[in-house]
Amino acid sequence: MTHCSRRARLSAAIGAAGLDAMLVTDLVNVRYLSGFTGSAGALLVYSDEWADDRPAVLATDGRYRTQAARQAPDLQVAIERAGATHLVARAFVGKAAGTHRLGFEGHVVTVDGFDTLCAAAADGTELVRASGTVEALREVKDAGEVALLRLACEAADAALSDLVGHDGLRPGRTEREVRRELEALMLDHGADDASFETIVAAGANSAIPHHRPTDAVLAAGDFVKIDFGALVAGYHSDMTRTFVLGPAADWQREIYQVVAAAQRAGCEALQPGVGLRDVDTAARTVIADAGYGETFGHGLGHGVGLRIHEAPGINAAADGTLLAGAVVTVEPGVYLADRGGVRIEDTLVVADTAGQAPDLLTRFPKELTIL
Amino acid sequence: MTHCSRRARLSAAIGAAGLDAMLVTDLVNVRYLSGFTGSAGALLVYSDEWADDRPAVLATDGRYRTQAARQAPDLQVAIERAGATHLVARAFVGKAAGTHRLGFEGHVVTVDGFDTLCAAAADGTELVRASGTVEALREVKDAGEVALLRLACEAADAALSDLVGHDGLRPGRTEREVRRELEALMLDHGADDASFETIVAAGANSAIPHHRPTDAVLAAGDFVKIDFGALVAGYHSDMTRTFVLGPAADWQREIYQVVAAAQRAGCEALQPGVGLRDVDTAARTVIADAGYGETFGHGLGHGVGLRIHEAPGINAAADGTLLAGAVVTVEPGVYLADRGGVRIEDTLVVADTAGQAPDLLTRFPKELTIL
Repeated sequence: MTHCSRRARLSAAIGAAGLDAMLVTDLVNVRYLSGFTGSAGALLVYSDEWADDRPAVLATDGRYRTQAARQAPDLQVAIERAGATHLVARAFVGKAAGTHRLGFEGHVVTVDGFDTLCAAAADGTELVRASGTVEALREVKDAGEVALLRLACEAADAALSDLVGHDGLRPGRTEREVRRELEALMLDHGADDASFETIVAAGANSAIPHHRPTDAVLAAGDFVKIDFGALVAGYHSDMTRTFVLGPAADWQREIYQVVAAAQRAGCEALQPGVGLRDVDTAARTVIADAGYGETFGHGLGHGVGLRIHEAPGINAAADGTLLAGAVVTVEPGVYLADRGGVRIEDTLVVADTAGQAPDLLTRFPKELTIL
Repeated sequence: MTHCSRRARLSAAIGAAGLDAMLVTDLVNVRYLSGFTGSAGALLVYSDEWADDRPAVLATDGRYRTQAARQAPDLQVAIERAGATHLVARAFVGKAAGTHRLGFEGHVVTVDGFDTLCAAAADGTELVRASGTVEALREVKDAGEVALLRLACEAADAALSDLVGHDGLRPGRTEREVRRELEALMLDHGADDASFETIVAAGANSAIPHHRPTDAVLAAGDFVKIDFGALVAGYHSDMTRTFVLGPAADWQREIYQVVAAAQRAGCEALQPGVGLRDVDTAARTVIADAGYGETFGHGLGHGVGLRIHEAPGINAAADGTLLAGAVVTVEPGVYLADRGGVRIEDTLVVADTAGQAPDLLTRFPKELTIL
């Protein structure tokens, strides 16, 4: 799907919401709709009623003049230091008098930023919340997006295989060394970057769900939990695997099997039309029934795409249902403070029809691997 | 300076602003004041009038239970999914009736987030903007911060020296390869990470101020512009150097000398008490007088610390003056579209007294280097 057809979908959504236009200021949303990847910019898109007449306008500052022209050749580009303000001020210039409804991203625009936009708006321009409108479009991935997510997951799989294959996870190495090598291997396999700061957590550190790698040394008997991903053309992969260095203790085998069973249950529940909360429950029940419910303090999963965390959230508080074509993670964990923890996470594409298994993008084996 | 004494400075600032407490939701500000580095959290700090009685409270979610206890052992920690909302609701529990003024970060809290906070606030709690209060404290670096910034700049200097020293900038390599090696070298020299996505821009790409590395191949006669930095314990370094591969053409020598002269003028103007705009003008005038004013489309510099871009901004629109002990960049550039561009950037500490030269943290040579 081209950026132009994504904007057409937004124009339809804007019109359906009774808006005349929408100001997009979230930079990931700007990228999704335009292709522009600069660190400053805003996009104005008109409703389908007006869009033929008024093409979308991208505003960015002087640093990005050349880049904007290259990345968004089909768009009108305004070079302005305060791009969003400029777009709001000029949104309805030349239009008949009367009230014009301009949507804005209330989950992105700050309280102070909103004041600035209101001050810039011409008489008759009404700023109306349209929070999450673009994110809702992004929730279902198009074929081009799935292809990039697949490449990102493949790069991560290949890097972890290389790392394990040449004994890169061995006692004596530090968490930081493992992180560096794994990230370098992802680049070798075509990633543009790591998709977030790789978590390598050894021993008791594995009980910290979001541990940052330290100079802690991997030791025999440790759990080593690795949560990482690759970035390919803006798309993020996300996978967690937990290993044991040397013979596994009984408690390690036990919590590993509990998490593995919970993860399978979560993946099996991943069907279009199913309640998000029910997917969370499917996995959480397995952990709770085994007596570890208190130790699993985070949600089961999240959407992944141009952001590492995006809609839908899969957790106990989530409303709504899983959409066909959504790409999400399933990542239960059990964490025993000061001892160690296990998380197993995959990235999957929800199938088009109920009863069909999701498409598993992260394919590195999930059996307990004793290194 | 410890986190505790930073919070004491904030308590004094809050009291002076007529507030009873402040909700800090910017994660970098939370880190500055608490040491906590998780990706979700909020901090409540009371004014100096109340602080003895009411210690600060850090709220974060269950993923960060262990990490928060380790990183902020001197703080009360509340484990809550919606931390900021929790803190607002409970800020003045047990206090005498009447109106209590609670500051919030209007430049950080979104329009939607503000509604949630208002709904959570108890009767008598008045939410008051306190935008930029913590950033103002962060503008002047304490000795510990300067030490970390120096380490970050040293790691970047050493990495670039290594790269150039073993002929790493040579025709035939791609921008991406150079980026990868330079980032790996920074890690070898003690960096935790790159401080932002390294810019390596060869040939005509060097005319794009914020170019992302591609598979473009470095060729004889090219400008190669490298803008990069190291991250050490949360502190960012920032430096740009531009090289020429092989004999420099006359136009290349000319714009290089213009930018170098502008950069010297900017650094010389970097004195405590001087207007920020005047520092920008000092460098910009050199470029304008040489006839290239139109090509220098960005500000002269910015503060650097826990963020790569922070207060103060040094540009033509900036109000205010440079503070003693601020750490800033000076980075003029001349960019000739489709031909090439030059930027030279240093990170410097503003001296304590007027007339004293700033402390140059990025020490890699700035003479035109022909490789």
